[in-house]
Amino acid sequence: MTRPINEDGYELWLRYRRIANAEVLKRCRRQLTSIVPLGERSPGSSVLANATLAAAVAELRVGLSGLLGRDLPLGDDPSRAGALLVGRSGAAEFEEFQRPSGPAGAPLDAPGKDGFWITRSLQEPSRIAISGASDAGVLYGAFQLLRLLQTGDDLGAVSQAGAPRLALRVLNHWDNLDRTVERGYAGFSLWDWQKLPDHRDPRYTEYARACASLGINGSVLTNVNANSLVLTDPWIEKVAALAEVFRPYGLKVYLTARFSAPIEIDGLATADPQDPDVRDWWRRRVDGIYRKIPDFGGFVVKANSEGQPGPQNYGRSHAEGANLLADALAEHGGVLMWRAFVYDHEVPDDRAKQAFDEFTPLDGSFRSNVLVQVKNGPIDFMPREPHHPLFGAMPKTPLLLELQLTQEYLGCATHLAYLAPMFKECLDTDTGAAGPGSTVARVIDGSLHGHELTGMCAVTNIGTDRNWCGHPFAAANWYAFGRLAWDPALSSQAIAEEWLRMTFSNDTRFVQGAAQIMLDSREAVVDYMTPLGLHHQMAVSHHYGPGPWVSEGRPDWTSTYYHRADAQGIGFDRTASGSAAVAQYFEPLRSQYGKLETCPEPLLLWFHHVSWDHELASGKSLWEELCQAYQRGVDAVRTFQRGWAALEQWVDEARFAHVSDLLRIQEQEARWWRDACVQYFQTFSRRPLPVGYEPASKSLEELRALRHYYVPGINNPYVARTAKPKKASPRSEKRS
Amino acid sequence: MTRPINEDGYELWLRYRRIANAEVLKRCRRQLTSIVPLGERSPGSSVLANATLAAAVAELRVGLSGLLGRDLPLGDDPSRAGALLVGRSGAAEFEEFQRPSGPAGAPLDAPGKDGFWITRSLQEPSRIAISGASDAGVLYGAFQLLRLLQTGDDLGAVSQAGAPRLALRVLNHWDNLDRTVERGYAGFSLWDWQKLPDHRDPRYTEYARACASLGINGSVLTNVNANSLVLTDPWIEKVAALAEVFRPYGLKVYLTARFSAPIEIDGLATADPQDPDVRDWWRRRVDGIYRKIPDFGGFVVKANSEGQPGPQNYGRSHAEGANLLADALAEHGGVLMWRAFVYDHEVPDDRAKQAFDEFTPLDGSFRSNVLVQVKNGPIDFMPREPHHPLFGAMPKTPLLLELQLTQEYLGCATHLAYLAPMFKECLDTDTGAAGPGSTVARVIDGSLHGHELTGMCAVTNIGTDRNWCGHPFAAANWYAFGRLAWDPALSSQAIAEEWLRMTFSNDTRFVQGAAQIMLDSREAVVDYMTPLGLHHQMAVSHHYGPGPWVSEGRPDWTSTYYHRADAQGIGFDRTASGSAAVAQYFEPLRSQYGKLETCPEPLLLWFHHVSWDHELASGKSLWEELCQAYQRGVDAVRTFQRGWAALEQWVDEARFAHVSDLLRIQEQEARWWRDACVQYFQTFSRRPLPVGYEPASKSLEELRALRHYYVPGINNPYVARTAKPKKASPRSEKRS
Repeated sequence: MTRPINEDGYELWLRYRRIANAEVLKRCRRQLTSIVPLGERSPGSSVLANATLAAAVAELRVGLSGLLGRDLPLGDDPSRAGALLVGRSGAAEFEEFQRPSGPAGAPLDAPGKDGFWITRSLQEPSRIAISGASDAGVLYGAFQLLRLLQTGDDLGAVSQAGAPRLALRVLNHWDNLDRTVERGYAGFSLWDWQKLPDHRDPRYTEYARACASLGINGSVLTNVNANSLVLTDPWIEKVAALAEVFRPYGLKVYLTARFSAPIEIDGLATADPQDPDVRDWWRRRVDGIYRKIPDFGGFVVKANSEGQPGPQNYGRSHAEGANLLADALAEHGGVLMWRAFVYDHEVPDDRAKQAFDEFTPLDGSFRSNVLVQVKNGPIDFMPREPHHPLFGAMPKTPLLLELQLTQEYLGCATHLAYLAPMFKECLDTDTGAAGPGSTVARVIDGSLHGHELTGMCAVTNIGTDRNWCGHPFAAANWYAFGRLAWDPALSSQAIAEEWLRMTFSNDTRFVQGAAQIMLDSREAVVDYMTPLGLHHQMAVSHHYGPGPWVSEGRPDWTSTYYHRADAQGIGFDRTASGSAAVAQYFEPLRSQYGKLETCPEPLLLWFHHVSWDHELASGKSLWEELCQAYQRGVDAVRTFQRGWAALEQWVDEARFAHVSDLLRIQEQEARWWRDACVQYFQTFSRRPLPVGYEPASKSLEELRALRHYYVPGINNPYVARTAKPKKASPRSEKRS
Repeated sequence: MTRPINEDGYELWLRYRRIANAEVLKRCRRQLTSIVPLGERSPGSSVLANATLAAAVAELRVGLSGLLGRDLPLGDDPSRAGALLVGRSGAAEFEEFQRPSGPAGAPLDAPGKDGFWITRSLQEPSRIAISGASDAGVLYGAFQLLRLLQTGDDLGAVSQAGAPRLALRVLNHWDNLDRTVERGYAGFSLWDWQKLPDHRDPRYTEYARACASLGINGSVLTNVNANSLVLTDPWIEKVAALAEVFRPYGLKVYLTARFSAPIEIDGLATADPQDPDVRDWWRRRVDGIYRKIPDFGGFVVKANSEGQPGPQNYGRSHAEGANLLADALAEHGGVLMWRAFVYDHEVPDDRAKQAFDEFTPLDGSFRSNVLVQVKNGPIDFMPREPHHPLFGAMPKTPLLLELQLTQEYLGCATHLAYLAPMFKECLDTDTGAAGPGSTVARVIDGSLHGHELTGMCAVTNIGTDRNWCGHPFAAANWYAFGRLAWDPALSSQAIAEEWLRMTFSNDTRFVQGAAQIMLDSREAVVDYMTPLGLHHQMAVSHHYGPGPWVSEGRPDWTSTYYHRADAQGIGFDRTASGSAAVAQYFEPLRSQYGKLETCPEPLLLWFHHVSWDHELASGKSLWEELCQAYQRGVDAVRTFQRGWAALEQWVDEARFAHVSDLLRIQEQEARWWRDACVQYFQTFSRRPLPVGYEPASKSLEELRALRHYYVPGINNPYVARTAKPKKASPRSEKRS
């Protein structure tokens, strides 16, 4: 078997290579002989007038031609054998196509907004129709049909309907206007502001295509630590150019709004939400944006958090702040996503409690076009957290789940960490808010409390790296987010296998081997970074590598605040005897988490301060289990290395080497985490390492002395040891 | 004729598309039937032991297979018809190959270090040999043969020798360790420090290949505004990994050395070059570098300039500073490039004079492994400057010519500006230093004053943009630099045509049309930015757009310091009645430039303050000529737009649209320059615009009020209008 030719990952999961299985290929070639677009044509032309339908047809043309290994022509005879009909579901040509049947043979009905059917003709089964409830639905159906073929289906029995479970499926780019990306590990921002609006990089279109292929329908272009400049006219022109590129793909643009923008842009004296001039300013500014971008999505706001300005600067609540902007957006149909990730500049007894305490009293006081945007866990995108207690606790308010794809706390773009299992862990958790079955998924899909405005968003891991996300496996997280936002019920394994088949190979041996690595990968990171419920143990500021000893500065930004290790034991007591954060959860979780005996071990040290000698389910002491978890994490990475090596024949040399290189780095860094944490915690436990434990290659002192500069994703300069007196500052006019 | 398929520019001039001319293709296929590598094989293998020879053969294999449109096999029979022999010139197999003949039929001899021959067998003319005086010579010969085929030659009469005229042919990357690039307009730094040394981006190899294809043999990886961190061990490991990738391509790595590094890295009390501890520190540090990188090239130093530390901080001369580092490098064969771009923190009467005044007294006091690195002109990479008066004025010191490919002052990466004519203008200038014929080229190639250590370097325009240099035409400047460093006698036109043929198409109509645009482009920039010898009129700090009104801050960083416009006239008097900078030039230029009547009009306002009514050669007044020059610049860009539009059929859609977009921006910005400068200067001249002059679309007030934020290439933040009191700084530990 010859090795596949080199790829650089740019095509993501939309590679459309010829179907490898000769039998399947033959059947598909017979099945598909022409594409017949249904819909209004542009005057005097055969091109579809609707840009979204045109994009769907173009994608099918390119995709099917690639998959079939020969040009698939456009046709105009919908009754011809092998015709693939494509259009809005109202078209008369679709009448003879059967609707797909449900599990019990019952007909499946219209799948709702932006849904699609892929069905076969009752009269001539070689004819297939993709019909959509909307233009976007047609596009999503087109991508679904392509996905079926890409993953090995021959369409012999195709009959299905699909529709997104959530209304808003949004990517958040933490991109700054200078093209740096906060927590970006895959190069720099895609948005080349300097050349916009005049030059539109073809990559913008590729980005929109990839998003549409997953059903993602919104893109927040700018960092939540916002810059008001983007709201000024010259920048809105640039944003409008991106919106125009994205529009055919059903992708709306959103911006982050800095609460103090009226002051910064136009010199207003205040940004108080009750000030009439301020209300007027936002209304005019938003009107101006919609004049340029009629389908502008809306704003995301981070306010009164980590130094960002907000309504509390003026003694107003988060609801008053949110409603100010929501009112300005409402008449244009825009939505406002107000982040619940807030914490006071005064250090609380437990940071985990703050969002809940601040937001639950506001339930019911937000405008109907506001979503409160809540991270999956109460701290901050840790490798493992319990679900955020706000889920289920604000029944009158739509909650938007915020996930993080960029691996701020999971090894940047150098560690292989497939995050779907982490996302699923949150989505599938039963909050108990309205009795059994009150899962986070049902909170955010609106079914639990009856909301129409629903959504999921994720901080992207996308940058200018040729393969988009840095690590060749990191695009799987973009993919998984899109698929879960479409349907939170999909399994991690199914998503991983889809992605692997589309990204690498349909060979079952490859798919099984690689999926195993993916499915085990997040737990490995938990093990070598923060096992048993530990959290927030990374180095200061850039969060790269271990820093369990970090104890200086604001307490709730330190590691010692979170691990609380002492001679007796380790862990954050969040029971009634401690911060009582556990009381924010509904029963039965409240009791389960609150008792040492019933608390799940993966969350043990999140909720309890536990004695080093406490016996765990295995019969081993906490100390032994802790040491073994760190070692297990390292061993897992070595297993990934061996597993990957065994897959060499199915992967091109370039991507194979890239992953191998990064796994080598991951193995080094897993050891670094293990050696730093175990040796550091040993200074408290004063207990020996378990028998057979792999010796550390560096002492604790050596590891503590390591300094890392210019870690991507944050401005992190090297500070010269000896400050020299400076000449008159040359930085503003350096010529070199 | 069908349109060529889309390209993204990544392949640069090494595309190796099948030869389009059927006759030529047929002849070449007959001419070349196997590649026969001569040289030692790795034990038990057919792979050449020498990595550079192996790279040459690999390049020929890929290149010729592409050009011939069929796989060209490796062979082992050098006597077979159609064999292409490749190896070091000593090989016995080369004996029967004739040496190329000189113009008068005389045999051409060994071309010297790193030279090559491409010759035909006397016995069987279908056999061709590429032989090199060194491994690198073989590689350069391979690229030359490929270039011949790429530009339409059928090798029917090939017989040539080639060798670089300069020893050091070096690219300077102004890349910071956080991957920002000072004056970088094509994305960010190629060097992904975070993943080095473990992961080596395949792009590093592509970079080295492209450099080698031009004979470039050195790469300074870091910004001249240096960061001492790169000299520490963990970073040298990273640098060593790059050096290893570059090595087979004959490309050495260099670093910039921060003069205060001993203080910053190891806490020494001083960086005084006379301090024994400091001397010892540099020696040990350099030894450490060579242990990791045995062929390390050496250092570039910017000292006592724009706030950079240097020997003058300790009352020592530039020579003492340079010799400190040169001594440490000497025993390893390293060289030191010490920049002459210095100016004092005290404002001089004329900045143009400073380098000359500072360096000429030091002639003869530098170590033999030092080159003084001199920019082409005495100010700073302006669209037009006279040559730097140091050329010819330091006969005992090797001078390295420093050019700038990144368009800091010529429209960033959005303006089409082919710079070879600018470089040639400098190289071909007769300094008069040792009588007629003392061109800058002869100063730097060592022939004028008998130096062996010679070189040329250039600040690159390379970044992470897919097409490397941002503007699809900007790679022509990388190409032109490499070709001129190889042979300063090449013409701008010949280089442009080569590049066009290799980058786009061999069709003569295309080549002629596109070459005309390229050859006119730099003069157009001069016209719409700084005609008639004006200079340094750009906006503050980022240098993007016009700023003739800039008058605040350090005087020699303002525009008014340089244009000196008043009611009488405009221009910088550098004659005896002014700063007397003209006295730094040798005769006859000194007199020619010094007199208003004989000064070339393109340099008029560089050397003279000239009355608005002064009559120029055209019979028109200075004011009229000035206005018309600005208009001519705008018109030229419109001519480029029309010219490019006419070339559509020969260019793929993607690159065609990209260039069209950027020309549209260039036309807008040319008008911006014209309208800003003419209206501003009119406030002094108080004279009407010439009849028929195109009206400005914005008033001077509007143009002066424009602000540009986040211009690439410099940290240039948006400053909020109203400074708000900040909460306890959250920046160091922001989580978002």
